[in-house]
Amino acid sequence: MKVVKFGGSSLASGEQFEKVGRIVSSDPDRRVVVVSAPGKRFDEDIKTTDLLIRLADQVIANEVYEDALQDVVARYAEIVTYLELEEAVLKDIEQKLRERIDTYRHDDDRLMDALKASGENENAKVMAAYLTKTGTPASYVSPDEAGMLVTDEPGNARILPEAYGQLYRLRQRKEVLVIPGFFGYSKENNIVTFPRGGSDITGSIVAAGLEASMYENFTDVDSVYSVNPNLVEHPHEMKEITYREMRELAYSGFGVFHDEALLPVVEKKVPVCIKNTNHPDLPGTMIVAERIPDEVPVQGIASDTGFLSINLTKYLMNREVGFGRHLLEILEGEGISFEHTPSGIDNMSVILREEQLENGKEERILTRIRQELNVEDVNIERNLAMVMVVGEGMARTVGVASKATAALADAGVNIKMINQGSSETSMMFGVDDQHADLAVKSLHQAFFPDK
Amino acid sequence: MKVVKFGGSSLASGEQFEKVGRIVSSDPDRRVVVVSAPGKRFDEDIKTTDLLIRLADQVIANEVYEDALQDVVARYAEIVTYLELEEAVLKDIEQKLRERIDTYRHDDDRLMDALKASGENENAKVMAAYLTKTGTPASYVSPDEAGMLVTDEPGNARILPEAYGQLYRLRQRKEVLVIPGFFGYSKENNIVTFPRGGSDITGSIVAAGLEASMYENFTDVDSVYSVNPNLVEHPHEMKEITYREMRELAYSGFGVFHDEALLPVVEKKVPVCIKNTNHPDLPGTMIVAERIPDEVPVQGIASDTGFLSINLTKYLMNREVGFGRHLLEILEGEGISFEHTPSGIDNMSVILREEQLENGKEERILTRIRQELNVEDVNIERNLAMVMVVGEGMARTVGVASKATAALADAGVNIKMINQGSSETSMMFGVDDQHADLAVKSLHQAFFPDK
Repeated sequence: MKVVKFGGSSLASGEQFEKVGRIVSSDPDRRVVVVSAPGKRFDEDIKTTDLLIRLADQVIANEVYEDALQDVVARYAEIVTYLELEEAVLKDIEQKLRERIDTYRHDDDRLMDALKASGENENAKVMAAYLTKTGTPASYVSPDEAGMLVTDEPGNARILPEAYGQLYRLRQRKEVLVIPGFFGYSKENNIVTFPRGGSDITGSIVAAGLEASMYENFTDVDSVYSVNPNLVEHPHEMKEITYREMRELAYSGFGVFHDEALLPVVEKKVPVCIKNTNHPDLPGTMIVAERIPDEVPVQGIASDTGFLSINLTKYLMNREVGFGRHLLEILEGEGISFEHTPSGIDNMSVILREEQLENGKEERILTRIRQELNVEDVNIERNLAMVMVVGEGMARTVGVASKATAALADAGVNIKMINQGSSETSMMFGVDDQHADLAVKSLHQAFFPDK
Repeated sequence: MKVVKFGGSSLASGEQFEKVGRIVSSDPDRRVVVVSAPGKRFDEDIKTTDLLIRLADQVIANEVYEDALQDVVARYAEIVTYLELEEAVLKDIEQKLRERIDTYRHDDDRLMDALKASGENENAKVMAAYLTKTGTPASYVSPDEAGMLVTDEPGNARILPEAYGQLYRLRQRKEVLVIPGFFGYSKENNIVTFPRGGSDITGSIVAAGLEASMYENFTDVDSVYSVNPNLVEHPHEMKEITYREMRELAYSGFGVFHDEALLPVVEKKVPVCIKNTNHPDLPGTMIVAERIPDEVPVQGIASDTGFLSINLTKYLMNREVGFGRHLLEILEGEGISFEHTPSGIDNMSVILREEQLENGKEERILTRIRQELNVEDVNIERNLAMVMVVGEGMARTVGVASKATAALADAGVNIKMINQGSSETSMMFGVDDQHADLAVKSLHQAFFPDK
């Protein structure tokens, strides 16, 4: 069985629902459908989730919110009308919204979570009704009924291990099941949304729990590209990519699939297919545990900005047992996670995301470093970008580093940092923020020359 | 004033003493002379220090040691006779050796230290006598009299901070002072030898203490070369090099000057000149705090073998605050210092010298890593060499990484690791032990092409 997830743009309008209906009904293996809330119909459109956040904000601020509520209802009305579904479906949506407002008025965080989750929740009901009407018997299954058990902190749900066993029982159901993405229920029976990855993560959890043969993730792109398609004219389409490669790319700036959403399917080794709702016959990109190596070991190039480097200098640092541990302990004391720690014999740097040093942390950390580590110099270098070259087996291939550094040198990009060696799947270059796009373009040109 | 240090080969014979005498007397600024023990006169010769160690071993083993003692005396006899010094000088040497044996018979470690130190100590007396005889009034100054105060652990002397102030008082002396290298005296009045760097470190401490205008270090090479001259036919001679560059190169395998010996002069910013006793008119290599940058930012290439990498893999490792600290804490618990810690998002490696995992440490560390860090995989990769490309300002120069990696790729060397970024002075490549020499040669050819 396949678990099929559709993103917001795949469900933005009645026309899109029709495409989804055809995709689901065309393959009897597509037994579970996970849906997002209706997304943008055109560039300046507002996503349903954002309409719901506005509604929640107005309720919380004790403002008149009737217009905001009707804006939400109108999004569904358009779809329900187009698909010629029963009036009752729409009435139920409006009623549920009013109920949730009444239930959670006393608790701002819970109200926000409950209203945000409504976008997916009501959309799943519409989808189930539509599928059934068009000859594919389908049921809406609430995350509660599905057993989607999560932790209880509002807006920061984490799946609980027992959820997987409960989800597995859904295999017994005969009809197509439609499950809303983006949230679960805590043991305290609260609606709690996921912090990141939205419906992707629900789909991944459901696919893992059901031990699906495949997790199909329908979006609005034909495939995952080897580089940000906004940067390069003819980006290379990836046919097949491993979990590790996808994770490195997602982590380093690829928006197509949130890296945290991969974890459940990785653990159960469920293959993932990224496909386009608008071109469902195209093969898309497969994300798998192992792949047959290409001639070119490089699969993709990504970049992410907003890093800084804390640089320490101390003569004979490398002789001092405990120096590195002490430094990392100071960072840990402020709850800071770091990316890389390049070191020379008298130097050590720690690369981290800039926002991690906010709220006085920077000052406290620098003070402790000066006082406790007795360094000669400590300084902070800002505006760094990390550019990643990703591909399985790169570490075993002679010449990848040479090709990459030559491309950067030819483009006049100064490499401030190289980290290669621990991961067999990636090579990292630290460059100036302002050189990040140039670096990515020149690397893409080097590894995927225009045909 | 200049402090001038002469190594063992510069003092191996009467002829060499004559060269040293001419060097000292030719420059009235050369006011303090630090001497090693007589070194090898020819390839298969035995250094005086090794003769002394043999003598100490025999005394400790309660064997008949008269022959071994006479072998030591004979080395000095040859020099004293050649230089036509008074018989009393030689008599005194023999007497002092016997006295030390008698004094320290009860304590093996102290005996070893005292006899090892005799090589330098007696040579200093011979040098003072020779300089005086040839018209340069000179005095032997024992490290005790000089104020060379060190810690008390046999064979592991560390200079005490108060030594510098005491040494400074020697500036008042008018004659040339000859100080033996390699040892100091502890507050308990024991002779204690330095663990590494021998007479280089004494010279450096004396130069720093006296706030000398220069520390001249006379050896048997014309200059410091940009690469191990045994590997390359026409190595590039360095005219000027910074402390940091010298330290990186010394640390990475350059035998010419021990890195620890640099510390005292670095702190007082005393420039160092490496010169050849046999060609004193050549300029040698200056080691200074700052230098004017060359067109080529690379100054030297070194390599060192015998490293290993502990490689850890854990999904979502980078999200785990405290992972790196915990790993380094486990290593610290076994007293292990590490070289580098390259990391990917789900990987971390720690590079260290192979001998650090001896005596059961490897097993204990791997057990703790598995139990406490809950990693998916941990393995050890052995037989790694670290190849360093060293030069001030490399980090600010576009194309150095590209040139280096291209040279390695062209030579077919697989780069297992790159660490660049923290130090502005070096770039490190991890390669297979067996590729180390090839890597060094190809890098030298790339940065210092044959004219």
